[in-house]
Order: sequence, then structure tokens, then C-alpha cells
Amino acid sequence: MTPKIIAFDADDTLWHNEPYFDEAQERFCALFQDYASSQEILGLILNHQVKNLPLYGFGIKAFTLSMIETALQLTNHQISGKGIEQIIAIGKDLLQKPVELLPNVESVLQQLKGKYKLVVATKGDLKDQHRKLHDSGIGHYFHHIEVLSDKTELDYEKMLGRLECHAEDFLMIGNSLKSDVLPVLNIGGHAIHIPYHTTWEYEKIDFEIQHKNFKALTNIETLLTIL
Amino acid sequence: MTPKIIAFDADDTLWHNEPYFDEAQERFCALFQDYASSQEILGLILNHQVKNLPLYGFGIKAFTLSMIETALQLTNHQISGKGIEQIIAIGKDLLQKPVELLPNVESVLQQLKGKYKLVVATKGDLKDQHRKLHDSGIGHYFHHIEVLSDKTELDYEKMLGRLECHAEDFLMIGNSLKSDVLPVLNIGGHAIHIPYHTTWEYEKIDFEIQHKNFKALTNIETLLTIL
Repeated sequence: MTPKIIAFDADDTLWHNEPYFDEAQERFCALFQDYASSQEILGLILNHQVKNLPLYGFGIKAFTLSMIETALQLTNHQISGKGIEQIIAIGKDLLQKPVELLPNVESVLQQLKGKYKLVVATKGDLKDQHRKLHDSGIGHYFHHIEVLSDKTELDYEKMLGRLECHAEDFLMIGNSLKSDVLPVLNIGGHAIHIPYHTTWEYEKIDFEIQHKNFKALTNIETLLTIL
Repeated sequence: MTPKIIAFDADDTLWHNEPYFDEAQERFCALFQDYASSQEILGLILNHQVKNLPLYGFGIKAFTLSMIETALQLTNHQISGKGIEQIIAIGKDLLQKPVELLPNVESVLQQLKGKYKLVVATKGDLKDQHRKLHDSGIGHYFHHIEVLSDKTELDYEKMLGRLECHAEDFLMIGNSLKSDVLPVLNIGGHAIHIPYHTTWEYEKIDFEIQHKNFKALTNIETLLTIL
């Protein structure tokens, strides 16, 4: 495999993210534990997130607005102003979490830099992802960051158009089979899956992938042995 | 002036935008007319927007969350759930407004296409700006769209890095002296101001610009005579 551009997903590929969302959702569930079980509440949040995707896209602001809608539904619109304020605070706390790199990320980037054009390709809030890349201290290993409004085949095709890169010269690395692997393989690119220990419900798929352009690794360090 | 890349601001440069925001703010003021004058309410919204910029950035989701915070403040947290729902609806309506091109935009793009690399460079919500470019019907005139988390000198420098373009080969066209003109001139680029009839309070500056790389036009059509 000799890609020209290697793109890394950010959340749960370069740094920890999902545990912060889990913690935020736990705080939300605790606020409304008199209204429903945690499992029911998490299901409602996800419903609102998915319903709002076409308008809001991904990211913490969308998550915050979906939590507010969930709270309106759970309380039959009886939520207090203080309750709304607490939800907004959960969202703002998420936007200020420290960025903790996953093991071996920096040493791998060090060895890849200069040999390939490295970019970050992530969904989420524009401002938030730029902030995290800055705070991570690894921004200088990358040519730039691409914040995508989604990671469909079309989104990847548009990104490759911007980068003036053919799909066969492109390698995507990430923790989501649904977002980082499948669409990239479908447009003729290469993809490597490095799973994170927990996955957002929305990103789960229930089948296995076998493809000549696909590899699954357990640790980012192994990347160096196959490139 | 022989730029290699010409970037167009989107909102109120390519299509109408500010009147939709004004209408949304009027709806908000009407909801809370018993609490304060429209002028006071608009001032409070702006305060919350500016305070939230470092975390939220620009765009309609940030605007919606800032309206909710304004409502909490105005009502001393006594706002009802139905009130919150109405604010969320104001935001969602904004995300679904039709895209109406400004006069002569399409004919100018038609004549520039092929001679320059044309891009859209805009702030706002990622998903929303992509949606508007799609709905505008003029997406095919552009190489791509750059949604920036802000339009500071650093943001422009990063964008030119991504585009592999020197500042002296770059021309930015937009309706905001603060965001589309000043930072571009400061990093050595060229800028053209085409004012829109109304400007968001945050984008106003109170001095005149005189610079060898700067021109002010009253209509986008004049662009063809100076390039």
C-alpha cells in the first residue's frame, strides 16, 4: 500500500472522546431519573439526534439541542429554566474537556510525517474540532484538518476533489466501520479500522467487512509495519 | 490584479441572509415583549453570542443556544417549556430558509469560471452552509467550499496553506470589512468589498480602509471590469 494522502479520524482514533459523551449522557440521565430509566432516556436522545441530523449535522451543539428536546419530551414541557441551564452546562463542559491522546499516536505520526501528506478528517463542530487539534499538541504533524458535515461516499468524494487526490491514492484510518471504512472502500480508496473500546450506537454496524483494500488493526502502532 | 484563487464570502455576498436573521430576532423579541424592549433584547442576544463565540463559534445552532440563554436571563429562569420549544423552532426555521441569489451573481460566476479557481469561504454551521450552496444551484461554479470557524488572519493563513496558494495570488470578495477585507489585506492578499444593505452588528467597523490591494464596489457585476 503506497498512499499519497493518509487521513486520520480524530475522535476515538487520535484522542479519547466517547467516554466524555457517555459521562455527559449519565449526567443528563441523573437529572431526569424520576421520569424514565437511563436506557429509555438514552434511546430518546438518540432518536432526537438522528431526527435532527439533516438540519443540525454532528457535534456538541447539535447534541445539546437534542438533549433539550429530549428534556421537553420527558417532562411534558414542564422542565424548569434551571433544568435547561443545567443541560446547556453539560454541553459547554463537553466543549472544554481536555484532549488526551491515545497510546502511540504521536510516535506513529512522527514516523509518518514527511513520507505522506497527513490530514485529519472528522465530523463534529468546526470550532470544537479545531480547538481539540490545537490542544492536542499534534497539529503540526498534519497538513490540515478537514471537518466534514458527514462521512458519506459523497462527502469523501468532495474531500478528495478538494485535495486533488485519486481514491486509490487515499488511505483513511479510523475507529468507525460505518463512517471511516465502508464509504471509503465504496469509492475505491483504502481503509484501516482501529477499534476503540466503546462505540456510539449510531456508528455500529452488524456485519463483517472483507475487502482487498481493507485491514483491521488492534493498535495504531502496527500501522508502521504495513505501510 | 491577476489572482489565482478567488474566494467569495457566502451570506449576503452570494445570497440573502441577514434579513432572515433579522426576522428571526423579531420573532424572538415578540415572544418576550413583556420583559424588555426589542432594542434591549437584541443587545442581550448579541452579548450572549459574543460571550459564546470561543466555545460555539458562528452559525445558527450557536445562535439558537444564545437565544435560549437570553430567554433564561430575560425571564429570570421562569420561561416555560413551550417557550423553549418556540425558540428551537425559530432556529430550525432559519435552517430551512430558501436560498435567494443576489442580483448578477450567477452571470458573474459564469464568466469567471475556468479563468480562476473559485472557492466559497464562509463562516457558519458546516451542514447549513453546505446545504445552502447545494440549494443555491451555483455549487458547480466553485472548486469547493471552505467553512471557516472564524475569519481571522490565522484562519485565512491556514486556508491558504490548505489551498497551497500565496497570499499575493489570493483575492477575497465579501460584504464584511471586518471579516472579508481587513484580515486578508493584513496577510498580504487582495480584497474587494461589496456592501449589503444591512450588516450584523458584530461585523461593523467604524473606520475607512485605504490600501493598494483593496477596492470597494457597489455591485458584483463591476468585478468583471477590474479583473
